[in-house]
Amino acid sequence: MEEELLRELLPAMVERRRHLHRHPELSFMEKETTAFVRRILEELGVELSSGKGDIGVIGTIIGELPGKTVALRADMDALPLQDEKSCEYASQVPGVMHACGHDGHTAILLAVAEYFSRQKEKLQGTIRLIFQPAEEVCPGGAVSMIEGGALEGVDVIYGIHLWTPIPVGTAASAPGPLMASTDEFFIEVHGKGGHGGMPHMAVDSVVAGAALVLQLQSVVSRSIDPLDPVVVTIGSIQGGAAQNVIAERCRLAGTVRCFREETRSIIRGKIETLTEHTAQAYGANSSVEYMTGYPSLINDQNEFKRFLLTAMEVPNLKGELSAQIMPAEDFAYYLQEVPGCFILVGAGNEDKGIVYPHHHPKFDIDEDAMLHAAGLMIKMAESYQLEHA
Amino acid sequence: MEEELLRELLPAMVERRRHLHRHPELSFMEKETTAFVRRILEELGVELSSGKGDIGVIGTIIGELPGKTVALRADMDALPLQDEKSCEYASQVPGVMHACGHDGHTAILLAVAEYFSRQKEKLQGTIRLIFQPAEEVCPGGAVSMIEGGALEGVDVIYGIHLWTPIPVGTAASAPGPLMASTDEFFIEVHGKGGHGGMPHMAVDSVVAGAALVLQLQSVVSRSIDPLDPVVVTIGSIQGGAAQNVIAERCRLAGTVRCFREETRSIIRGKIETLTEHTAQAYGANSSVEYMTGYPSLINDQNEFKRFLLTAMEVPNLKGELSAQIMPAEDFAYYLQEVPGCFILVGAGNEDKGIVYPHHHPKFDIDEDAMLHAAGLMIKMAESYQLEHA
Amino acid sequence: MEEELLRELLPAMVERRRHLHRHPELSFMEKETTAFVRRILEELGVELSSGKGDIGVIGTIIGELPGKTVALRADMDALPLQDEKSCEYASQVPGVMHACGHDGHTAILLAVAEYFSRQKEKLQGTIRLIFQPAEEVCPGGAVSMIEGGALEGVDVIYGIHLWTPIPVGTAASAPGPLMASTDEFFIEVHGKGGHGGMPHMAVDSVVAGAALVLQLQSVVSRSIDPLDPVVVTIGSIQGGAAQNVIAERCRLAGTVRCFREETRSIIRGKIETLTEHTAQAYGANSSVEYMTGYPSLINDQNEFKRFLLTAMEVPNLKGELSAQIMPAEDFAYYLQEVPGCFILVGAGNEDKGIVYPHHHPKFDIDEDAMLHAAGLMIKMAESYQLEHA
Amino acid sequence: MEEELLRELLPAMVERRRHLHRHPELSFMEKETTAFVRRILEELGVELSSGKGDIGVIGTIIGELPGKTVALRADMDALPLQDEKSCEYASQVPGVMHACGHDGHTAILLAVAEYFSRQKEKLQGTIRLIFQPAEEVCPGGAVSMIEGGALEGVDVIYGIHLWTPIPVGTAASAPGPLMASTDEFFIEVHGKGGHGGMPHMAVDSVVAGAALVLQLQSVVSRSIDPLDPVVVTIGSIQGGAAQNVIAERCRLAGTVRCFREETRSIIRGKIETLTEHTAQAYGANSSVEYMTGYPSLINDQNEFKRFLLTAMEVPNLKGELSAQIMPAEDFAYYLQEVPGCFILVGAGNEDKGIVYPHHHPKFDIDEDAMLHAAGLMIKMAESYQLEHA
Repeated sequence: MEEELLRELLPAMVERRRHLHRHPELSFMEKETTAFVRRILEELGVELSSGKGDIGVIGTIIGELPGKTVALRADMDALPLQDEKSCEYASQVPGVMHACGHDGHTAILLAVAEYFSRQKEKLQGTIRLIFQPAEEVCPGGAVSMIEGGALEGVDVIYGIHLWTPIPVGTAASAPGPLMASTDEFFIEVHGKGGHGGMPHMAVDSVVAGAALVLQLQSVVSRSIDPLDPVVVTIGSIQGGAAQNVIAERCRLAGTVRCFREETRSIIRGKIETLTEHTAQAYGANSSVEYMTGYPSLINDQNEFKRFLLTAMEVPNLKGELSAQIMPAEDFAYYLQEVPGCFILVGAGNEDKGIVYPHHHPKFDIDEDAMLHAAGLMIKMAESYQLEHA
Repeated sequence: MEEELLRELLPAMVERRRHLHRHPELSFMEKETTAFVRRILEELGVELSSGKGDIGVIGTIIGELPGKTVALRADMDALPLQDEKSCEYASQVPGVMHACGHDGHTAILLAVAEYFSRQKEKLQGTIRLIFQPAEEVCPGGAVSMIEGGALEGVDVIYGIHLWTPIPVGTAASAPGPLMASTDEFFIEVHGKGGHGGMPHMAVDSVVAGAALVLQLQSVVSRSIDPLDPVVVTIGSIQGGAAQNVIAERCRLAGTVRCFREETRSIIRGKIETLTEHTAQAYGANSSVEYMTGYPSLINDQNEFKRFLLTAMEVPNLKGELSAQIMPAEDFAYYLQEVPGCFILVGAGNEDKGIVYPHHHPKFDIDEDAMLHAAGLMIKMAESYQLEHA
Repeated sequence: MEEELLRELLPAMVERRRHLHRHPELSFMEKETTAFVRRILEELGVELSSGKGDIGVIGTIIGELPGKTVALRADMDALPLQDEKSCEYASQVPGVMHACGHDGHTAILLAVAEYFSRQKEKLQGTIRLIFQPAEEVCPGGAVSMIEGGALEGVDVIYGIHLWTPIPVGTAASAPGPLMASTDEFFIEVHGKGGHGGMPHMAVDSVVAGAALVLQLQSVVSRSIDPLDPVVVTIGSIQGGAAQNVIAERCRLAGTVRCFREETRSIIRGKIETLTEHTAQAYGANSSVEYMTGYPSLINDQNEFKRFLLTAMEVPNLKGELSAQIMPAEDFAYYLQEVPGCFILVGAGNEDKGIVYPHHHPKFDIDEDAMLHAAGLMIKMAESYQLEHA
Repeated sequence: MEEELLRELLPAMVERRRHLHRHPELSFMEKETTAFVRRILEELGVELSSGKGDIGVIGTIIGELPGKTVALRADMDALPLQDEKSCEYASQVPGVMHACGHDGHTAILLAVAEYFSRQKEKLQGTIRLIFQPAEEVCPGGAVSMIEGGALEGVDVIYGIHLWTPIPVGTAASAPGPLMASTDEFFIEVHGKGGHGGMPHMAVDSVVAGAALVLQLQSVVSRSIDPLDPVVVTIGSIQGGAAQNVIAERCRLAGTVRCFREETRSIIRGKIETLTEHTAQAYGANSSVEYMTGYPSLINDQNEFKRFLLTAMEVPNLKGELSAQIMPAEDFAYYLQEVPGCFILVGAGNEDKGIVYPHHHPKFDIDEDAMLHAAGLMIKMAESYQLEHA
């Protein structure tokens, strides 16, 4: 890697990130961001494909030397939050804000594109650039990018997330599962309403619903390998309205997070079985609506090792083993198709007051992290192509 | 009892009942009904007292012979229901209806007043007439009538309820507890909200609330004499709003019905103890708001026996032992002050299609029951005064 | 009734009761008691039938006037208890004791037999005497007495129980259900054992069994009319043995008491449904063994009224309405065949120190109660025969 | 490392392991094993310390070059199992068997001792040899070895476990927590016994105990970070004896496993709070006896990295990241005092039929693993001393 060249790209990277930060767009509505990205890539001479829709960009940089195709991905959407920062690059769109760092991701990948575009003579294969919409909202933009051909011919894929819980200067990832799958479920227990003083004429859905809440605790405590992290949360229970009327219906709504598809399937089955039989035990009926969200993000073991080795070569960066984390990421869909690695790049900095968690109205990043992220992407791509040359 | 005289009073009794049925008034708003009653009693020369407020009437008929004072009570309020009957005396007030028979009670007591007013020379003591408002709505009209002096000098009290679940020709009551006390409770379990994927950072009020619902079942199943009827119903549970957020608060609302003050006190204590400790078990806080309603209606043993014996002497009527029933009645307050008996007078008649339960939009009574009820009241008063002469 | 005659019979009645008290025999082993009864009845010239076995006696006294047949029943068995009284008639059999008053019942019925034997010329019908074994032990002696012809030709049956919780001088009964049915149940939840640290490889029967205990509370609290008394007690739970091994089996054992056959059937069904589905909810299997005991004892309404009226005519006795009581009685089986009434005859006396409950090692009766009981039986038989003459 | 030298030591290592396998000794009774080890070490000229008791051996080999002190540990005890193998080195002691590989551990450390004794001129520091008794039985032999001075002057410690679930040729460990802490708890809920038909006179400990079992499920499901593996198993519930008697006492016994001391402390607190308040909610008393076992085994991050790098240099071995595992190890106590690493050395071999899990009566190891383990220990010691020279 030409470190000098990369360093030259930093000012533009920061400027572009701040531009995007001022002009955030919500998920599936990234029209201006898409145009911004296309314009820059066109200037660089990157071959562009429109993909499936008109939001998002697929670019291809073909090296002059033969080799493998490495995909690099950035997500572009912002969140429905009011920016509470007072800096000059604060959001200019009321109620919309880049509170998750996707502005940085986009600017980083543009810098990487510029790097490779200027180094085509040394590039041993192809770089596929994926600028996707809508990472924040299920079903996510990744699925349509894949359907639009983003992974055609791709051998491996890398993605990064600027991550403020980790201090700048550190990057972290994990072999295998890194981020959780996230599903939602909606249960209705349907009893028979009645007079509060005549329980024998009714089927009390509140009692059945309450029993179900307690029994669902056993999914985590008894049905899953304790070494396999899972969450089953019943966020809401709503049964009945009046204090002296036995409730006909009791509704539960909850969320499931885990790291393995097999586990996910067991949990879903347990929720369905517990619901059906607990309702029946009380003489009530029931239904379960189970809505699958993003799958678990599972890194390739070898590509994780590549990350650990590569991180050592990026200036001012060290690589670490990350614990698994509960948030979900639609990068997981790419990893279901091709091997790869997703990396959390430290972007927090207590000394600079950059301490706010993701999705916070005062969220910001240490922009030095962008150089680390771009360097990591470039080096990992080069490492892969070199190994498989 | 002069049966002939009583029979003469029937046409006016029916006419007055139908007049009231056409012109129902809601609880604590019985102005016209009060005026109607006062006018008739004044014509009869009954001594009237205004009591505490301007709704409700207290009348006194003093016999020419010395003796005890017997109170007789009628309630006058209607319900917020749309009358669905098509008969000529159907309610003329939209959304208000005598769907519980209080129109009949008022007409019956007016007939009884007329009877005694015409028989003063034979009357061995005093008859106190109590026309009260608001039996249907807690805290009920009985309390203010008592505060207004309705029971001053009273030795015993009788009251009746026209009752369609019992066929006309039968009256029923019970020694001791006949009708339930009714209380309401409102519980809040206060945990700590949090992200659905991070339960360890939160205190899940939904789980604690659900556990509490299950544990409250044990109040009835384990804490109360199985021979002492009680109901504890949790009519409503409301916890959380979103499926992926751990709920900070979970609210339960319910009702308690029972027949003994000691039992009522035990239940209240158990609800409070179970709530406090179940919340604490989960690291949550809690509060219980317990609102007492009408007490249990408890008949005097001797006055119940008087009813059984007296009923045999009323033409076309037989008296029976009633099972305890779950509805509440503010007549219970009078019985906390003086002995007495409350009697359910059969007013249903399948042959005439009079089959609708109380509070039903097609509710009606067999008007023959009014004669039974008036006869019963007169005879019980005479029996008491004769015995204690 | 010839009160003089009855009074003459008291000394022998007391003497016989004390003889039996000294020589108690356990259920189904009442050989000497049977011989004792036969001998006396033979002396009285009562016609005897051997019934089905050689324990128990069926006698018949045919009056000289035509009329109905009235059955009167006594039970004869004692309990496996050590008598702790120090009086001269204390039990002479170690570990066996008449701690429930059946000695009195037998002596009373012998006196009644003597009374009617001496009054045959006035007897308007037939008296059937039933001295049965084994009231204390399920399946009880009543069933075999009925199979042995004890109720052949019988129109009505009466039975009494000397009852120390009621003071001597009072007798009590109830129209309809008086004493509870008693059943037992044995549940096994069959999961899959496993290592305490690997719950996902096992099916934890302790969790499923515990959930079932909680859910069974709802049978009483939610499935039965609050005015219909029931008890469901889980007396025992036994699951697993070691603290670090997940239990394969969890066993529950319990008892059910109630007053109506329909209720009994509902409870059994609920227990079976709750068990089956709660086990299935957790992926476990289950079995329920439900063993029916005595049915509920249900008096005839008219015969209860006869009791109330008749009691007034027995010297020094008053009749009252009894609350329902939880103990079971195999007299219930006779009442499933013919109408009748079972009566609790007060036999307690605080002034004399007769305060011990039934089945207590110091249990005793006030022997005056025997005269009341005999008088009640005689008068009720005469009343029935007179009414139906 | 002189690989040639190590290879020469293999025959003696196998022979010694087989000798120990034939003559197993139970925990804290390793007298002959201790003597066997002492004899060999004395022959090698190793400086011996008696430690605290007479079971176990502490040896010290001082190199001719200055440097750090590295401790290496072996455990020596067998299990109370009947050996079911039929090979010539099967246990000759009925009911006692090396079913966990500790015979191998001892033989390996003796070989390592021989290696370093012959290489003193090259040894850059000191090697401390710890042969401890009683790893299988709480409180374990490690505590008394530490008290006996085993870690005096020690800078780092390494230990290995021959591990049949991992195939021979692979070694695995983890940075931070590798093996679980294991505690036991014994809960008693103390209610008030009573008649099965009179629940209101009793406090039902079975209902309270069952509620507690369900609520304890929430410790795992709600109170602990889902990414932090824990198990809370209630292995046993015992309440009451008879089906018709309400149980005075209900006892629960269970086990807790986790990987962090803070988590362990939270779990213990939750169990105590849930027990106290659930009992109180039902009006019962309670007690919790919580018995702490081995702490969690927590490797040093740097020493784990040393393992990964070192394993690459041992012939025919590769190093891997291990998942956390639930068994406990008293090596954890050494790691509470000094940094170090505990390593699972693959000893399974399907081709040779070596497939039985630890503690199985047919357990055996692939003896080639002993060479890997000895090589790993030697290389890690050398690596540490070299780095800190």
